[in-house]
Amino acid sequence: MTDKDAILAANAAYYYAFQASDFAKMSNIWAEDDVSCIHPGWPVLIGRQAILDSYRDILRNPIQEKIEHRSDTALISGNEGRVFCVEIVGGMPLAVTNCFRRVDGVWRMIHHQASPIAVQVEETPPPTSRLN
Amino acid sequence: MTDKDAILAANAAYYYAFQASDFAKMSNIWAEDDVSCIHPGWPVLIGRQAILDSYRDILRNPIQEKIEHRSDTALISGNEGRVFCVEIVGGMPLAVTNCFRRVDGVWRMIHHQASPIAVQVEETPPPTSRLN
Repeated sequence: MTDKDAILAANAAYYYAFQASDFAKMSNIWAEDDVSCIHPGWPVLIGRQAILDSYRDILRNPIQEKIEHRSDTALISGNEGRVFCVEIVGGMPLAVTNCFRRVDGVWRMIHHQASPIAVQVEETPPPTSRLN
Repeated sequence: MTDKDAILAANAAYYYAFQASDFAKMSNIWAEDDVSCIHPGWPVLIGRQAILDSYRDILRNPIQEKIEHRSDTALISGNEGRVFCVEIVGGMPLAVTNCFRRVDGVWRMIHHQASPIAVQVEETPPPTSRLN
């Protein structure tokens, strides 16, 4: 298996864990240290505990939309790699960066960020929205 | 200057180049290889040429909103580092990841992604929206 195949397999495993709502698999995919995550619409989460807490909530959410991933593309430099893909969530496309680091021969996720692709979509804040 | 000071200075230099519409400075900030960029609402750009072309257009745009950056936070592991910050663009907050790699002792940008923070904002696609 080439480096590229391996990192793309790690990326696919992330989405498999998501689809299967498999928290144990998701925990194993994330590295132990130096991790960060920006879910769509969220501020950054830094540190394994905060990130895994967020996934525990997301994977438990019965109305969480299913996620497809497409157009996976890898950039690798030594033991650092990024996979770019397009997530389709509820029919809407998100531009995603998944950063991996090779730790003891295994690609582990160190960063995830997903952001909406603005394809003929406009934001309209509702007049009654509140922070809490 | 500590590693952290140096990478935060590199991050500040990125925003300085932006504010000054200084394309030469922006070009120097980006690394030569292994670079990627996801502007808000855009799909990923991969490769120095595509990225610099996008910045040339953005920096030339007379109605480009000014950008402030706040809450800069660095995570460094060897010669790889990420800076997280909040950009304020036209009054709206964006969650940003700026990835840097130390090349010949200098932190150069290898990845930028900015995504809207959904604070009091909900997306409502207009009824006529189409994917293509």
